[in-house]
Amino acid sequence: MSVFTRVTAEQLSEWLKGYSVGHLSELKGILAGIENTNYFVTTTNGRYVLTLFEKLKPAELPFYLELMAHLSNHGLPCPKPIANLDNSFLGHLNGKPAALVTCLDGAPVMTPGPEQCARVGEVLADLHLAGRSYRGHLDNLRGPKWWTATAPELLPFLSDTNKAMLTGEVAFQASHRLDDLPRGVVHADLFRDNVLFHGEVIGGVIDFYFACIDVLLYDVAITVNDWCTTEDCELDPVRTRALLDAYRGTRDFTEAERRAWPVMLRAGALRFWVSRLYDFHLPRPGDLTHAHDPVRFERILRHHVESTGLTGPHLRLVA
Amino acid sequence: MSVFTRVTAEQLSEWLKGYSVGHLSELKGILAGIENTNYFVTTTNGRYVLTLFEKLKPAELPFYLELMAHLSNHGLPCPKPIANLDNSFLGHLNGKPAALVTCLDGAPVMTPGPEQCARVGEVLADLHLAGRSYRGHLDNLRGPKWWTATAPELLPFLSDTNKAMLTGEVAFQASHRLDDLPRGVVHADLFRDNVLFHGEVIGGVIDFYFACIDVLLYDVAITVNDWCTTEDCELDPVRTRALLDAYRGTRDFTEAERRAWPVMLRAGALRFWVSRLYDFHLPRPGDLTHAHDPVRFERILRHHVESTGLTGPHLRLVA
Repeated sequence: MSVFTRVTAEQLSEWLKGYSVGHLSELKGILAGIENTNYFVTTTNGRYVLTLFEKLKPAELPFYLELMAHLSNHGLPCPKPIANLDNSFLGHLNGKPAALVTCLDGAPVMTPGPEQCARVGEVLADLHLAGRSYRGHLDNLRGPKWWTATAPELLPFLSDTNKAMLTGEVAFQASHRLDDLPRGVVHADLFRDNVLFHGEVIGGVIDFYFACIDVLLYDVAITVNDWCTTEDCELDPVRTRALLDAYRGTRDFTEAERRAWPVMLRAGALRFWVSRLYDFHLPRPGDLTHAHDPVRFERILRHHVESTGLTGPHLRLVA
Repeated sequence: MSVFTRVTAEQLSEWLKGYSVGHLSELKGILAGIENTNYFVTTTNGRYVLTLFEKLKPAELPFYLELMAHLSNHGLPCPKPIANLDNSFLGHLNGKPAALVTCLDGAPVMTPGPEQCARVGEVLADLHLAGRSYRGHLDNLRGPKWWTATAPELLPFLSDTNKAMLTGEVAFQASHRLDDLPRGVVHADLFRDNVLFHGEVIGGVIDFYFACIDVLLYDVAITVNDWCTTEDCELDPVRTRALLDAYRGTRDFTEAERRAWPVMLRAGALRFWVSRLYDFHLPRPGDLTHAHDPVRFERILRHHVESTGLTGPHLRLVA
């Protein structure tokens, strides 16, 4: 479960006097999520999610909250932070930094079809374009510097084959400079559980707490690795094409991006293989269960490594 | 009807490339409204209202749009302007200033009960509190200066009784200084057709194009005059009490406001009596029909004038 800090209806009613959202009518803890405490909050004005930040650094929170507000202002279906009477998106409740954001409709689709992948490609491109006018800055805390530092800690837990793949991949990524790729706001975690659908329509893009400024194509790779892989951890040609073509309908890829695509697919897989290995083998004290199995990203990465240099149309950014 | 400037689906699709709202799926003219051209716009991301501003001064538009964005950021259920890729809420389409705002759910309630009046009182107080941190400024274009200048133009059209009431009321208002009343953002037109309900819940507060910085109590008076009057144009004690008490639950009235209430009820009635007389007798060339009958506000004002000094509990701001 993920209610680490308890909030009573009385405490919340008092706190909500600092907001313009009407009176509390319902409060309910949310079990999903492993980083923060979340509650569903219903007031006379609407439905919200209350988040108490348990681990994120307070200095980083304005980047995420202002970003959600910016994207929401641009029409992206993402949670909209609610400002309090001090005109701030960030408050404090029961000793924790806390924010109230709108609650979005829809449910994750765990076995998406090409149409849904296309919608995701479209919304990701919209996010990248709308992000251009965002003035906040935060470096990627899970980028090359991080995986290069983290990989050696993981080696003791790995088979020889995996040791070789991890060391090799970190070196491979280091040998590829990506300075000529367009950069900007990236979601960096646009997995299936972070997109809420009703039918074919996206009702919500959620969980911006890995968002940062990085290479846009890296975000595309992370998204494709989750949305377009088969149970065997290979790219599904139809879903991959649907997502990439829909993305291009809103923001076309540059020539440099086309060349970098195979490298980027591997970078996106490496990032999640490393973090999942880490959470699996080196859980921090106080961490909760829910560690994802690292095997999926090991296999996705292996397929990408073996495919690099091959030329199937779904292995190309533009068919 | 109120589509003065035609927009085709082709023109709109092209224009929407400057936004992050997905692709156009439906476009439909809106017949209500007399000041602007409005369309319902449905895209792959959601439902919006497109407004082409036909009469409002371009210099005033940012005040209204930024205000809606501010209030929406504070959780008020008002239309949320969508920023374009230039990060501006205001665009241009077919030669007119144009804006895209979210489309809200619900429908006006023309015969509200006490519960609905209470919700309106609550949301109005929320609006006044959330408005405190808004930095925009626009004077009331329909305030004492305006009605004092306009009244003489109307006298030729009035009966002797009404001439006396209009002249007398303008003088009465001029003799009351209201400098000690709290001021801030006011909606200034929170009539029944500008609040969308689903059941007892407010889904939308719309039409901010008379909003300005003025006396908060003036906004309460305008609202009570519309929501709480009977068919005979008298205050309904139960609905009046429900609205005012709910308002006080969020923002209490000051002592100066309690004293000023009878004067303010008359000011709110005078403002709409004058504008309706004007639109009725002196329509501007190019004006559309839909001139409201001035008689209702003539009668509301007369009741207030006759009640001033009386002490029924519904004639007091605080029971």
